[in-house]
Amino acid sequence: MPLDDDRLFPTDPSVRSLARALFAEIRDLPIVSPHGHTDPRWYAENERFPDPARLLIVPDHYIFRMLFSQGLPLERLGIPRSDGGPVETDGRKIWRLFAEHFHLFRGTPTKLWLEHTFETLFGLDAPLSARTADLFYDRIDECLAQDDFRPRALFERFDIEVIATTEGALDDLRWHRAIGQSAWGGRVITTYRPDSVVDPDFDGFAANLDAFGEITGCDTGTWKGYLDAHRTRRAFFRQHGATASDHGHPTADTADLSAVDAEALYVRVRAGGAGPAERNLFRAQMLTEMAKMSLDDGLVMQIHPGSRRNHSPDMLARFGRDKGFDIPGRTDYVAALKPMLDAVGLEPGFTIILFTLDETSYARELAPLAGVYPCLRLGPAWWFFDSPEGMRRFRELTTETAGFYNTVGFNDDTRAFPSIPARHDVARRVDCAYLAELVLTGRLREEEAAELAGELAYGLAKRAYRL
Amino acid sequence: MPLDDDRLFPTDPSVRSLARALFAEIRDLPIVSPHGHTDPRWYAENERFPDPARLLIVPDHYIFRMLFSQGLPLERLGIPRSDGGPVETDGRKIWRLFAEHFHLFRGTPTKLWLEHTFETLFGLDAPLSARTADLFYDRIDECLAQDDFRPRALFERFDIEVIATTEGALDDLRWHRAIGQSAWGGRVITTYRPDSVVDPDFDGFAANLDAFGEITGCDTGTWKGYLDAHRTRRAFFRQHGATASDHGHPTADTADLSAVDAEALYVRVRAGGAGPAERNLFRAQMLTEMAKMSLDDGLVMQIHPGSRRNHSPDMLARFGRDKGFDIPGRTDYVAALKPMLDAVGLEPGFTIILFTLDETSYARELAPLAGVYPCLRLGPAWWFFDSPEGMRRFRELTTETAGFYNTVGFNDDTRAFPSIPARHDVARRVDCAYLAELVLTGRLREEEAAELAGELAYGLAKRAYRL
Amino acid sequence: MPLDDDRLFPTDPSVRSLARALFAEIRDLPIVSPHGHTDPRWYAENERFPDPARLLIVPDHYIFRMLFSQGLPLERLGIPRSDGGPVETDGRKIWRLFAEHFHLFRGTPTKLWLEHTFETLFGLDAPLSARTADLFYDRIDECLAQDDFRPRALFERFDIEVIATTEGALDDLRWHRAIGQSAWGGRVITTYRPDSVVDPDFDGFAANLDAFGEITGCDTGTWKGYLDAHRTRRAFFRQHGATASDHGHPTADTADLSAVDAEALYVRVRAGGAGPAERNLFRAQMLTEMAKMSLDDGLVMQIHPGSRRNHSPDMLARFGRDKGFDIPGRTDYVAALKPMLDAVGLEPGFTIILFTLDETSYARELAPLAGVYPCLRLGPAWWFFDSPEGMRRFRELTTETAGFYNTVGFNDDTRAFPSIPARHDVARRVDCAYLAELVLTGRLREEEAAELAGELAYGLAKRAYRL
Repeated sequence: MPLDDDRLFPTDPSVRSLARALFAEIRDLPIVSPHGHTDPRWYAENERFPDPARLLIVPDHYIFRMLFSQGLPLERLGIPRSDGGPVETDGRKIWRLFAEHFHLFRGTPTKLWLEHTFETLFGLDAPLSARTADLFYDRIDECLAQDDFRPRALFERFDIEVIATTEGALDDLRWHRAIGQSAWGGRVITTYRPDSVVDPDFDGFAANLDAFGEITGCDTGTWKGYLDAHRTRRAFFRQHGATASDHGHPTADTADLSAVDAEALYVRVRAGGAGPAERNLFRAQMLTEMAKMSLDDGLVMQIHPGSRRNHSPDMLARFGRDKGFDIPGRTDYVAALKPMLDAVGLEPGFTIILFTLDETSYARELAPLAGVYPCLRLGPAWWFFDSPEGMRRFRELTTETAGFYNTVGFNDDTRAFPSIPARHDVARRVDCAYLAELVLTGRLREEEAAELAGELAYGLAKRAYRL
Repeated sequence: MPLDDDRLFPTDPSVRSLARALFAEIRDLPIVSPHGHTDPRWYAENERFPDPARLLIVPDHYIFRMLFSQGLPLERLGIPRSDGGPVETDGRKIWRLFAEHFHLFRGTPTKLWLEHTFETLFGLDAPLSARTADLFYDRIDECLAQDDFRPRALFERFDIEVIATTEGALDDLRWHRAIGQSAWGGRVITTYRPDSVVDPDFDGFAANLDAFGEITGCDTGTWKGYLDAHRTRRAFFRQHGATASDHGHPTADTADLSAVDAEALYVRVRAGGAGPAERNLFRAQMLTEMAKMSLDDGLVMQIHPGSRRNHSPDMLARFGRDKGFDIPGRTDYVAALKPMLDAVGLEPGFTIILFTLDETSYARELAPLAGVYPCLRLGPAWWFFDSPEGMRRFRELTTETAGFYNTVGFNDDTRAFPSIPARHDVARRVDCAYLAELVLTGRLREEEAAELAGELAYGLAKRAYRL
Repeated sequence: MPLDDDRLFPTDPSVRSLARALFAEIRDLPIVSPHGHTDPRWYAENERFPDPARLLIVPDHYIFRMLFSQGLPLERLGIPRSDGGPVETDGRKIWRLFAEHFHLFRGTPTKLWLEHTFETLFGLDAPLSARTADLFYDRIDECLAQDDFRPRALFERFDIEVIATTEGALDDLRWHRAIGQSAWGGRVITTYRPDSVVDPDFDGFAANLDAFGEITGCDTGTWKGYLDAHRTRRAFFRQHGATASDHGHPTADTADLSAVDAEALYVRVRAGGAGPAERNLFRAQMLTEMAKMSLDDGLVMQIHPGSRRNHSPDMLARFGRDKGFDIPGRTDYVAALKPMLDAVGLEPGFTIILFTLDETSYARELAPLAGVYPCLRLGPAWWFFDSPEGMRRFRELTTETAGFYNTVGFNDDTRAFPSIPARHDVARRVDCAYLAELVLTGRLREEEAAELAGELAYGLAKRAYRL
């Protein structure tokens, strides 16, 4: 069926009508995408995307985790094995398997995003099923062969004003450099993500520190040199457009050790002799160090805590990281952030954007914190909560305490390039629905709602991320 | 007042109309009741139910806990005292006391279930109050005297396709055997609930282990013999129809000890010398052992964790277990289940159904886990959450991440036989309301919703429980 | 714009219509305000309120915390510095700054309360903004100069039947005495809040104990004398109308030590030699002691746990307590309350009202506890949850398990006198909306809803607080 143009609006006619009116004014605002995981190489090389399965299924853990949960082996979905063993390589076969099981996605945002993509990008508005699998595959494949489906053309068609990608601290940013040196005018910026040289539990941490020293010319054998290496890389990332850093930690723990203690801790961590508590303390200390560097260089700091990564060691061994086995856990903020906030939380001109996978923290901890500390802002509903109900709960649970202006608009946070417009569409609709509800229950004037709709879709993200 | 035939449907006319249409197609599907606590003796003996108070009040802790919370002594409600001391025995007096306080149940599912029962079973559609107490009592009592209100007749009138009861590992299943040997065709199956021989904190644990050895002919003095005793009983329960086991633990902790360590732990626990941590470890280990046995015999495993049983020691002493003093607590799943999932979580053809009394785990832990592990399924909203708002939250908090097909339909979980149709009615209505909302906000096609309505009411339960 | 007379009612026309009808019957019920923080001196002296800024902004941490969160220094808002350093003293300048930033409050209850106050009290129904700042200031200031805007006149205009203030155990209650001795008939009662002599972490605890001994004539050098001092003060507070005590603790921990152990603990705490665990244990023990005294003197006990006070030590040093830096944290009740409940939880004629800042406890812990223990009642949505969404969640998460009659109506809990009618207006509207929804989804009869509306607005508070 064709997309319902009133989708995600409340069903009450008066609220729906106002939500529609609010949305009409902001649906065509440019996309500001300040946090995501698309591949800068796409924009640099502008090669055509591979077949439909490799565009839409193989890279998308939202999709293959659901199929796996119902017993489909990842090998049949073309997910590469760590040992290089055989997996399905026929895109059409993968696609058919997916299409046969598309009913599993009923009620999920994945289905919303895909159906939006199918219809608006590929003109496919029939239901996807085993019966229509080939029709879809052929049409998408045919489109992908055309020049106006190449990355830069899509970037422009999607009306992306600016997109941030995320690169590790050791990345040479060659693709960003190539984009910058090209004649193309699209604005693609990087984000400084230093987990691989900050988290002692990261794969190859010691070797990473060596490489960190080499590429920066700093002596990462010492605490001072290690911090200098960060400063050097942050400057390098800023040269490639970065306005933000990003930190994916298991917890939100922060620490504020004395310089002497921090140095001693680094020495132990560097030498591989630190236990779990010390490794956690080092990550905690580094959040405060990053915050202090932000005071100097102005990078906005993003903290994404609370994911227990690679829950199944067997799947990690067989398929590697990021295969859908990252599971959220309880996350404390009030005690965890205190050392950092005590150190720098009242400094002017400094921004920390907090995300969560533990919705219990929205109303209890995050909104009260962001509603008083000038440096704190709330990131949008993240990951499993990047969904209509997740976004609604985010607003209902944070607005009354933190207001709208302590939030930062929407992040699509996606690896799936074609889903970007769909995701922003969902966010804009859900926010307009929420605003319309406030107006029609006497909590907001209509002109206030109209102004806020633009802020939530566009203005807040630009200002919060200094874009 | 007569029941509102649109009860529990959304008030918006368009959504209500669709919810009603979806419900019309599934309201008369047979009842599949894969988990509950009705007494198999009822079906075996087919005696008439006792008076209204003993049918509806005395056995129902939902009811007497609420009355107690407002100061009514349990003795006046006819709840037997542990010391055999005097309690009210006049059913009519108990009933009148209940009727006088029926307003306390406003807003609770108990009121919904009772009013459904009063009207559909006994033709009573006036409000219950002190004034109408005798009218209700007399009518119900009169009905209960009739043959078509005996257990088997009600079973058939309720259109129960299959019902599972729950028996302890030491139960001789005589009533199930009697049902099987009778000419009656109703399908009543048992469920293997081994808590009394798995939980070292259970009353009479050591004696239970002795009995466990005797009835199985296995030497429960040894770890191997103890495990064999479980295998023997599981087979015996399977002969009486069991397709599932059930495990009510204070936490969801699991463990995967080496055989040597498990044996040593059993020896200490068997001898009564294990401390609290070891007793918990033993329960944890036994969940993994049960899972491994399920790989062999195909029993579906249900885990019901998180209730702090018998919160008031005084009430436990005076009235015994299951008197409304079981209070939920915070429950972790992500770390707790990991040992078991590491051991058997990726095995094909194996199902664990998870329940919770801690709704914070729905979106944060349970849906992400069930949305990727092939063995995991989410049980329906349980106990205090077997209610319209509880069910709605369950869907809103789990569907976007786990979808519908990682859930298992409805469990009535009841001791109160006459409430079974009312409880399934509530579940079917709430699910149709949710589906209608998805359709009318553009998230689902109407034919998808219709198919899902049948799955949630009937199909998923049959398949998940292998019925 | 003028206030929407249907504000906070559901948008569906049928539900709105019923909510409006329910509200019409109870909107003019007198205000019972059993818990709050208005200043009894106002009613005793009946002086005019100072300028608009000092009436509405400077004392209201909801307001200045939000402004601070967006970078406005507290000094510019006239908040006194601990060091007596210069802050803004020009009320008009403070007001203008506030008005310029009034958009920050969009979506918050603060805006609802203020706009209600502006319109109903001062006849101001234009939007507040930089442009209208002076208009508002002048009108409000002009009103405040009139006799019928003095505290007693407002008390009567607000139709307050009884208001409770909160005083520390050392307070001499002079203002309550003055009110009692005056010819004025307004009923202003006190509440016994002993935190300063119960919490070893309270500022000046040792000196407080000395003063406690002096004013009671009891020897607070001994445990027995210390308990006697409490009894003496409770009697004194009861003479000044108190029907309740109030306890603001970091956790809900309780303890039930033997008399010997309690005495020994007191001696260590008294001498300043107790560590954090012992100081917590002392607070825990004192909740049980207070409960036991309530059995004798009938004071209703209120427990307000879970706020991490003064999160920023820097702000505490610069501006003192209660400056918006109190942040909620996770709060357990099931284990925490057990010692006290084991000791006195089944005693007749005894009431403990529980509050929370951790909404996860509503359905998981608080409703199950209050739904069975006869002494327990649930306080209304508190502090950050004193808001439309917060109140709605409170009802949705507690009613199905605890019903309505284990709740206690509304507390405005405010320091901001003019906001009292607005806050009760919000609570009454939200409750009527909830009741109307229950009726129109077939869960409640209309006459039941009408009766409940009155109970929630008036009856329950009077009975629970014994007013």
